[in-house]
Amino acid sequence: MAQPAVKTVPTAAKGRTAMTSEVAKILSWYDSEVPGVKASLYRLMNHGVLAGTGKMVILPVDQGFEHGPARSFAINPDAYDPFYHYQMAIDSGCNAYAAPLGSLECCADAFAGQIPLVLKMNSANSMSAEKKNPDQAVTASIDDALRLGCTAIGYTIYPGSGAMYNQYEELRDLTREAKAKGLAVIVWSYVRGGDISKEGETAIDTIAYGAHMACLLGANIVKVKLPTAHLENPEAKKAFEQNNIPIKTQADRVREVVRSCFNGRRIVIFSGGNAKGADDVLQDARDILAGGGQGSIIGRNCFQRPHAEGMKLLADMMDIFKG
Amino acid sequence: MAQPAVKTVPTAAKGRTAMTSEVAKILSWYDSEVPGVKASLYRLMNHGVLAGTGKMVILPVDQGFEHGPARSFAINPDAYDPFYHYQMAIDSGCNAYAAPLGSLECCADAFAGQIPLVLKMNSANSMSAEKKNPDQAVTASIDDALRLGCTAIGYTIYPGSGAMYNQYEELRDLTREAKAKGLAVIVWSYVRGGDISKEGETAIDTIAYGAHMACLLGANIVKVKLPTAHLENPEAKKAFEQNNIPIKTQADRVREVVRSCFNGRRIVIFSGGNAKGADDVLQDARDILAGGGQGSIIGRNCFQRPHAEGMKLLADMMDIFKG
Amino acid sequence: MAQPAVKTVPTAAKGRTAMTSEVAKILSWYDSEVPGVKASLYRLMNHGVLAGTGKMVILPVDQGFEHGPARSFAINPDAYDPFYHYQMAIDSGCNAYAAPLGSLECCADAFAGQIPLVLKMNSANSMSAEKKNPDQAVTASIDDALRLGCTAIGYTIYPGSGAMYNQYEELRDLTREAKAKGLAVIVWSYVRGGDISKEGETAIDTIAYGAHMACLLGANIVKVKLPTAHLENPEAKKAFEQNNIPIKTQADRVREVVRSCFNGRRIVIFSGGNAKGADDVLQDARDILAGGGQGSIIGRNCFQRPHAEGMKLLADMMDIFKG
Amino acid sequence: MAQPAVKTVPTAAKGRTAMTSEVAKILSWYDSEVPGVKASLYRLMNHGVLAGTGKMVILPVDQGFEHGPARSFAINPDAYDPFYHYQMAIDSGCNAYAAPLGSLECCADAFAGQIPLVLKMNSANSMSAEKKNPDQAVTASIDDALRLGCTAIGYTIYPGSGAMYNQYEELRDLTREAKAKGLAVIVWSYVRGGDISKEGETAIDTIAYGAHMACLLGANIVKVKLPTAHLENPEAKKAFEQNNIPIKTQADRVREVVRSCFNGRRIVIFSGGNAKGADDVLQDARDILAGGGQGSIIGRNCFQRPHAEGMKLLADMMDIFKG
Amino acid sequence: MAQPAVKTVPTAAKGRTAMTSEVAKILSWYDSEVPGVKASLYRLMNHGVLAGTGKMVILPVDQGFEHGPARSFAINPDAYDPFYHYQMAIDSGCNAYAAPLGSLECCADAFAGQIPLVLKMNSANSMSAEKKNPDQAVTASIDDALRLGCTAIGYTIYPGSGAMYNQYEELRDLTREAKAKGLAVIVWSYVRGGDISKEGETAIDTIAYGAHMACLLGANIVKVKLPTAHLENPEAKKAFEQNNIPIKTQADRVREVVRSCFNGRRIVIFSGGNAKGADDVLQDARDILAGGGQGSIIGRNCFQRPHAEGMKLLADMMDIFKG
Repeated sequence: MAQPAVKTVPTAAKGRTAMTSEVAKILSWYDSEVPGVKASLYRLMNHGVLAGTGKMVILPVDQGFEHGPARSFAINPDAYDPFYHYQMAIDSGCNAYAAPLGSLECCADAFAGQIPLVLKMNSANSMSAEKKNPDQAVTASIDDALRLGCTAIGYTIYPGSGAMYNQYEELRDLTREAKAKGLAVIVWSYVRGGDISKEGETAIDTIAYGAHMACLLGANIVKVKLPTAHLENPEAKKAFEQNNIPIKTQADRVREVVRSCFNGRRIVIFSGGNAKGADDVLQDARDILAGGGQGSIIGRNCFQRPHAEGMKLLADMMDIFKG
Repeated sequence: MAQPAVKTVPTAAKGRTAMTSEVAKILSWYDSEVPGVKASLYRLMNHGVLAGTGKMVILPVDQGFEHGPARSFAINPDAYDPFYHYQMAIDSGCNAYAAPLGSLECCADAFAGQIPLVLKMNSANSMSAEKKNPDQAVTASIDDALRLGCTAIGYTIYPGSGAMYNQYEELRDLTREAKAKGLAVIVWSYVRGGDISKEGETAIDTIAYGAHMACLLGANIVKVKLPTAHLENPEAKKAFEQNNIPIKTQADRVREVVRSCFNGRRIVIFSGGNAKGADDVLQDARDILAGGGQGSIIGRNCFQRPHAEGMKLLADMMDIFKG
Repeated sequence: MAQPAVKTVPTAAKGRTAMTSEVAKILSWYDSEVPGVKASLYRLMNHGVLAGTGKMVILPVDQGFEHGPARSFAINPDAYDPFYHYQMAIDSGCNAYAAPLGSLECCADAFAGQIPLVLKMNSANSMSAEKKNPDQAVTASIDDALRLGCTAIGYTIYPGSGAMYNQYEELRDLTREAKAKGLAVIVWSYVRGGDISKEGETAIDTIAYGAHMACLLGANIVKVKLPTAHLENPEAKKAFEQNNIPIKTQADRVREVVRSCFNGRRIVIFSGGNAKGADDVLQDARDILAGGGQGSIIGRNCFQRPHAEGMKLLADMMDIFKG
Repeated sequence: MAQPAVKTVPTAAKGRTAMTSEVAKILSWYDSEVPGVKASLYRLMNHGVLAGTGKMVILPVDQGFEHGPARSFAINPDAYDPFYHYQMAIDSGCNAYAAPLGSLECCADAFAGQIPLVLKMNSANSMSAEKKNPDQAVTASIDDALRLGCTAIGYTIYPGSGAMYNQYEELRDLTREAKAKGLAVIVWSYVRGGDISKEGETAIDTIAYGAHMACLLGANIVKVKLPTAHLENPEAKKAFEQNNIPIKTQADRVREVVRSCFNGRRIVIFSGGNAKGADDVLQDARDILAGGGQGSIIGRNCFQRPHAEGMKLLADMMDIFKG
Repeated sequence: MAQPAVKTVPTAAKGRTAMTSEVAKILSWYDSEVPGVKASLYRLMNHGVLAGTGKMVILPVDQGFEHGPARSFAINPDAYDPFYHYQMAIDSGCNAYAAPLGSLECCADAFAGQIPLVLKMNSANSMSAEKKNPDQAVTASIDDALRLGCTAIGYTIYPGSGAMYNQYEELRDLTREAKAKGLAVIVWSYVRGGDISKEGETAIDTIAYGAHMACLLGANIVKVKLPTAHLENPEAKKAFEQNNIPIKTQADRVREVVRSCFNGRRIVIFSGGNAKGADDVLQDARDILAGGGQGSIIGRNCFQRPHAEGMKLLADMMDIFKG
């Protein structure tokens, strides 16, 4: 099967912010996008410690919206301050910092230009009583992202929820406008709601399916949870077993998710999940790398630690992703 | 009853891409459309092995959205890659390739111009818990279709579903914009939801009814499943029986569907349905031809086979349609 | 009470398409409309056998949408073809032909200009499982009506349905745009849904009420079913009885409907209802004439007969309406 | 507390349509409105028998929509004709005539300019099966009001209904557009639906509350029913009793409603309610005057009487309001 | 962690309306806003008795909408008049006066420019029967705020309600337009609905969470109720207890709310709540000051007292806030 050649990188571009072959290869996956989107993806991949490696670590802080300030920040009270996170993302050399509207508005002027920003467009909160049709509110606009100097937008879908089709259509509109204005699009794909069991939310079949749909919806970057070996859907279980898809190790499962994203033609990053020991976090990073994922998006495991510990954890993760 | 004459084909057009009488006749059914829509229909009918025959075979790949990647592609892992399908559609000489937004975005630049494209505008997925009011999400825009160089759009309606009227209205808006911008409109008409029984989803009366409504909604091309001899609606059953409508053979049933589409004045193509033996697929093609259908839209039966088998099946089908 | 004088018809207009006093009188009811709407009403009243009489017979073909092709057309298979109906409307000298979008698209170019067209804007279908809140889908736009060369639009309301207020608001928007673009507006007012009994759907009180509301909503022409002597609403029953409103004969009931339409200042036409004997159809026409109605809109009773019979029935009806 | 001075009326304006001090005082309540709205209020207050008195009687005819033609008009069959009402409003010297779209369209051209018109923007009908969430359909647009030469719009809210917030938002949009185009806004505030009891619909506490909300929503003129001494809400009952708000006589209750309308800084008019004896109607007028209301809006009690009786009743009412 | 320096105040600005360091510091929190929004915040902080202190007391009068006129005003009947409140806000030297549309329309012209105005954009009322999904109606537009000369808008969210996501999205749109037009945005965050208990509506965890979300939604100023020591959410309870967040005194709880608002980088003001003794009101003010809040928004406790008492209470509160 024909593969389009990776475009030759012009020598003139090989100055300080040289286009590495890793970045050029990844950009080639996005040939249909306008130059502005490619420039945004380039910026995400060429900032911080992992610049030019084709790997990325993003610091996201939307826990306050999701679970409230006390549950998110009381364990490390400095984290009540939005400046704390912003500064940590810069100082640790993350590829980008992601947060909801108000949080960016609080700091974007002070730190203007120091790190690529991802505006998290929609957010849910734990006060919601809805179980079958979980949804989120879209709390910002694409023009907010531009006004605040963002490089990408983030949007969460809940495959399985009775609200999912509405979410897909909201995402469609935001994606169209974002890309037309040169912003990259990151989709958080979190399976939940409807008939999905609790275990099914992190099953390998549902996460791979959710990641695949994010790609079909036009995501430039897909963010999912690290999957377990559970198989939720009986038909999918059959397909996994009859075709011997390896899902025993975490690296295997990452590989299946990456394959489900256009056979590896989309950037896939994984979330750190619940707070856990540093060793576990670093093992996750190794598994993501081994499975072909492009990196991590890690929040609670950073800011719910003392500052020095969080900084060290990020540094160690990035060391792993450097390969 | 007066029949408008088929327009004389100008000699000047009889070069390499000559207008055949078969194509000219079919185009005459669409006299009310703007030239851009006719040009799109022309392109669909003049590409690939069946060019100029008035018949068509289209390769659609939206199984990943409908059932997830493992159930769709694990049996033939090359199919995880969107390039695989695109290339197969080109190499086998299909009339067109149909896929959802993200999948076209992945390849449209690499293969630009090599085959007419159909952007599948809406998609459902098997995670949905909804049974009475099945629906789909509209995941792309008409301008996406233009941006990606498409020739037509595809849209699925679910006659019988509590969501059908909303779907008809969505289709109305998309159709209006698509035609105004020179794109042809293909409607997937799949009966389901509401009070429709499982058997009723493929009954001859409901499929003929669903096809008829697609025509009334302005479809240029109608896509339905091959119907069984089951009769779902008691009043329709009476009408079929009292008027001796022949529905015993598959060719009979295709004929009744075609007649229900403005007495054969619309292009009607049939989907291959579940994976089955090559002989069955080819018999379907013979029945479609005998019943007056214009062709097939066949996905799973191609890409869920080894590459060579899939290619051979497509070639054999096209041989049949060449008549 | 002052009555505005009927405008004097200019002599210059008394050529071939002379303005008759009947037409001039009816047009005077629509003084508030823009000239384009009046011209459309004029065209409807000056075409065919009944031209200039102030009476009209319209051929509507939306049965295929409502009940499916087999139940509508199998009894007279030529009727599967949209050209059949179009041609019959022209050949029989009907005032207009009414059909949904796709059906007009199929023939409008071939027969361009030969008969005034009514684009039926919304349609229901018998697959719907909804009983309390019956609704229809709006399947076309006003610009479609213009593009196809139509003279009027048709829209169905279901007074009594839980969906009726939405329908009224849809109709409001379509009416505003249609009239601004010079199209006349015909409202099909069919009582059903909510607490309305089956008998109540054709009761004289509900039909007169539904016709009155159509007028208040801005209809130029009101289309209702021929009412029975049943009285559905207890309060209305009292009003009919205490005030001795005559409803015993069909002509009486037509008269009450016409009176309910601004005391006869709106064109009111009646639908033929279920297929029945030719004598019954003709008696209906006599009753409509006697009661002061402006005519009939008759579909199934024409095209579900052999061609010659249908043509004769139309001719006989028109003879009656000529008075 | 400072009170803005009533603006001095320029001598030049003291010609035939002199600005009386009563009208000038009332206009001063609307200082924030654009001149066009003030001009419309001026026109409403300076037409007919009560011109210049600051009082008004409006003839509204939307009963046909609300209860159907037979229940509304059969008792006085001339009233089936929209011209009847229009003419009566003019001949009796009412300040304005109010009706739904179709009814105005029927007569507005014939009587152009002879009386200020109020386009009733939304209407309900008694076929609706909805009890908890009563609503109305918006059946006209602001541009319809302008096209027909209206001076004001009328809109009904149902405080208490589950649909009320939607109504408030519809009213917000219509009000904004109406005022920007120089039309005055009259709000019919009718408590009903939700947990409101039948008695509560005319309770003094709920009517005063509904009137107050109409003012807060931006109404120029508030129309409510004449309240009874019933107190619906337990907390409101306490407030009325503990603070000794007088509600024993009808004049007392009118006074409390007027006070609830920005302490008398808004025009408040009362509806006549069900058909009743002429003496009762006139006593209502006396009570409205005594309580500080600006007038009546009276429909059924006029047109459900023989013409002469209706005319006399209007004349007698106006005599009372002249004071 | 780096803190952006407070901008040096230009000497030229140190005239009559000198920029104090308190105001300059607070404005520095809003660096990302356009100058128009900063100017509006400046105006709010530089009007009245507390001008330049960085503290504020706002008089809000939307009780009439919320509970009806009798329950709101009968205890002090002068308060039926909107002029009363407006004048009191001016005479007492409040920073601003807040009211719904109609109320501002009644007085804004008479008092034009004398005090900053807050247009309360949405309102609920006690007639609503809805318990799980409480909502409000948006009763005004941003252009209304401009037309009436307002400095800010106010909008209420109900975190916990099934309607909250819609509210967040409405707020998003209003905020975007308001800020683009130079208006400041004040969010009333009132927890209620869904699974929230009555006690939970004023729990410290839910109020801090609701305040945090208001900040994330882009609020310039957050208004919440004074919280109790109740902890509603079990997970939040754990977080408060394990991390020893002090919530015993009211000042402690104010401090936690302020910390939850971007670590004190947003203006937070507290509502007075139900009518209570003057001593309690003043103790609340002392606690707000001690906890780091910026002030009070106090309605019922002012206007439900005799005028002199209300004026004295406001004066005493302001004395406290002057520190």
